[in-house]
Amino acid sequence: MITVYGDLQSGNCLKVKYIADALDIPYAWREIDITKGQSRTPEFLSLNPAGQVPLVVLEDGRPLAQSNAILRYLARGSRFIPADPYDAAKVDEWLFWEQYSHEPYVAVARFFVVYKGGSIADRDPTIVAKAERALDRVEQGLGANRFLVGNRISIADIAVLAYTRLSPQGGFDLVRRPAISRWIAACEQELGLPPLALVSAGHSHSASALS
Amino acid sequence: MITVYGDLQSGNCLKVKYIADALDIPYAWREIDITKGQSRTPEFLSLNPAGQVPLVVLEDGRPLAQSNAILRYLARGSRFIPADPYDAAKVDEWLFWEQYSHEPYVAVARFFVVYKGGSIADRDPTIVAKAERALDRVEQGLGANRFLVGNRISIADIAVLAYTRLSPQGGFDLVRRPAISRWIAACEQELGLPPLALVSAGHSHSASALS
Repeated sequence: MITVYGDLQSGNCLKVKYIADALDIPYAWREIDITKGQSRTPEFLSLNPAGQVPLVVLEDGRPLAQSNAILRYLARGSRFIPADPYDAAKVDEWLFWEQYSHEPYVAVARFFVVYKGGSIADRDPTIVAKAERALDRVEQGLGANRFLVGNRISIADIAVLAYTRLSPQGGFDLVRRPAISRWIAACEQELGLPPLALVSAGHSHSASALS
Repeated sequence: MITVYGDLQSGNCLKVKYIADALDIPYAWREIDITKGQSRTPEFLSLNPAGQVPLVVLEDGRPLAQSNAILRYLARGSRFIPADPYDAAKVDEWLFWEQYSHEPYVAVARFFVVYKGGSIADRDPTIVAKAERALDRVEQGLGANRFLVGNRISIADIAVLAYTRLSPQGGFDLVRRPAISRWIAACEQELGLPPLALVSAGHSHSASALS
């Protein structure tokens, strides 16, 4: 059985849980509190010198880091990776885009609120603007499609879903993004996840933004 | 024949050139000057809504973005992707790490010097510190190995090589990193690239740093 070192509040870690649960891959979950330095202990650093979660340790002891690399590894040969080479490449395109243009802003803005206890009003405006742009890019990328690539759920959806679905906790509004709202519901249904709120509890909405 | 939209000064774009040249994949190169907004024209945005280079357009007109997704696509089935699933996953680990923890610092510090004409002394110290840490991580990850994964060249090497090899242009010193220096020479030999300087022309070295 694989061991997952992760933090259940972290979207990157939840990606691993989502794919393992969806594919009935058994795992032992070891909860890591990054705020207490548990990903920086000598034992942890010997498994992942980058000091990051999630980390998967295979049954034979070999470690694998990077959430999207873990997604690709656990999903290999499954319905979550398209057989067509171009569609598979478009899945990769979303995976790399997520780590470069989405996670560093959407996740970091939420980290400030959820982990650091900051207020939504005090978020870094540069990060917020880039996060809003990333969410708009997802909205545009979905368009009228049910999923991001080839009209079937794939690890591209899981990778982008993780922090998008949690973004209202960081002060972002998904209600005014109908493609994302519809897509989250479809992913939740496919993955057997309970529905999460699409509006931030701390976010003030004007009537026009909600209409 | 594929068309590559790219900027020959950009490490992300050079990755595409390196793999295409190594595998004798014919391509037409369309040089894009990002400083003149050529990646933000309506025509370009219709191919890549993210407005980024490199972009590959396949013979049938379908576009593919994200340098590391392009690497994986062009290298599929070749000696640059290990057949072993774990080794292939470790290659992915380096690819995602490069886009998250290396490129945003090593490339951005160099961008400030090479594209913006900034001086090495004026680089953002936070970015420089993270870039130095990323280069140290490559040094540590190589250790005594010839290449990053499985002792054979792979797209992990190409992805990490691109901006590492150009980093002296951004003020970084590779001479005091013997594993990186040796690895760059090995990659240059495998890929048929001319040797580049390992020390920044604008960087002042103390005697101790070079000894």
